[in-house]
Amino acid sequence: MTLHFEDLAPGQTYDLGSVTIDETEMFEFARRFDPQPFHVDPVAAKDTPFGGIIASGWYTGSLFMRMYADAVLSNAASHGSPGCEEMRWLSPIRAGDVLRGWVTVFDVQPSSKRPDRGTAFMLGEFLRDGEAVFRIRYRGYFGRRKAATGRGSG
Amino acid sequence: MTLHFEDLAPGQTYDLGSVTIDETEMFEFARRFDPQPFHVDPVAAKDTPFGGIIASGWYTGSLFMRMYADAVLSNAASHGSPGCEEMRWLSPIRAGDVLRGWVTVFDVQPSSKRPDRGTAFMLGEFLRDGEAVFRIRYRGYFGRRKAATGRGSG
Repeated sequence: MTLHFEDLAPGQTYDLGSVTIDETEMFEFARRFDPQPFHVDPVAAKDTPFGGIIASGWYTGSLFMRMYADAVLSNAASHGSPGCEEMRWLSPIRAGDVLRGWVTVFDVQPSSKRPDRGTAFMLGEFLRDGEAVFRIRYRGYFGRRKAATGRGSG
Repeated sequence: MTLHFEDLAPGQTYDLGSVTIDETEMFEFARRFDPQPFHVDPVAAKDTPFGGIIASGWYTGSLFMRMYADAVLSNAASHGSPGCEEMRWLSPIRAGDVLRGWVTVFDVQPSSKRPDRGTAFMLGEFLRDGEAVFRIRYRGYFGRRKAATGRGSG
C-alpha cells in the first residue's frame, strides 16, 4: 500500500540501511561538483586541516537522498520537498567509511492551502560506529489518500 | 592574493556566473541519487504535481557548490563548512533553464576556540529570469592570514 500523508505520524522511524563510501565515486563527484583540494587532490589534502581526502558534503547528502528515496519514497505519494532547515556535516567522512542511515518523522501538518497534501517534518542522520556524522532536518510533501474536504482524491 | 578570513566582510557579494541545466547530466544525477518518478521517468512525471521532469534539488545544490567553489573557494584559504541553516527549492527547475548565481557575506565571526580561522555566514541564490528559484544559507570556515593571537600563522 502506497504511503500517504495519513500514514505518517510523529515518532515513526525508518531504517535506511548502510552504505560504504566508494573512493572512485567520491572522487568523481568532487571533481565535478566540489573540486576543493581536500576533496580532489591527495597530495595537497595532506596540508589542509583534514590531513587527507574527505568526501564532499554534497556527496554525503546525495547518498542520504538515495537511501531515503529507496527506503521511503519509492513506495510513497511523494510531492517533493520545499527544502531543509538544517544540514550538518558533523565529522569528516572518508573512503571506506560505513554509514548507517535512519530518518524519523518528528511532526506532520496538513496543508492549509492544498487539501490534497500535507507536510512531514523529518530528522535524518548518518551514523558511523554509532556516532552521528551527518544530520539533516527537512520537510517532505505527501499526497493524501483522501482530500481533506472529504472528497475522494483518486 | 588568497582570500582569508580577514578579507571577508558583511555586504560583500560574489557573482557566480550562469549555468544552463543540462538534460543528460540532470537525468544521470537523478538516476543515481534521487530516482523519484518526477526526476527520472518522463511518462510517469506527467501524472505528478510537477507535470513533467524537474531537476533533483540535490543536483541544483551541487551545481551551486561548483559555481561557489570556482568563483570564491578556488582562491581562498577554505577550511570546509559545518553545514547550512537553510536550503530552499523555491520553484521547479527544468532542463534548459538558465540560472544565475550569487552569494553574499552577511556576517563574519572569529573562532573563539581556534585562532587560525573564522566563520563566514553566507546567503546564496540561483535566479531564473530574475526570480529566486534556489536559496541557501550556510557557513564557511576560512583560515586567517595571521592567527588571532598576533603570532604569524604561516
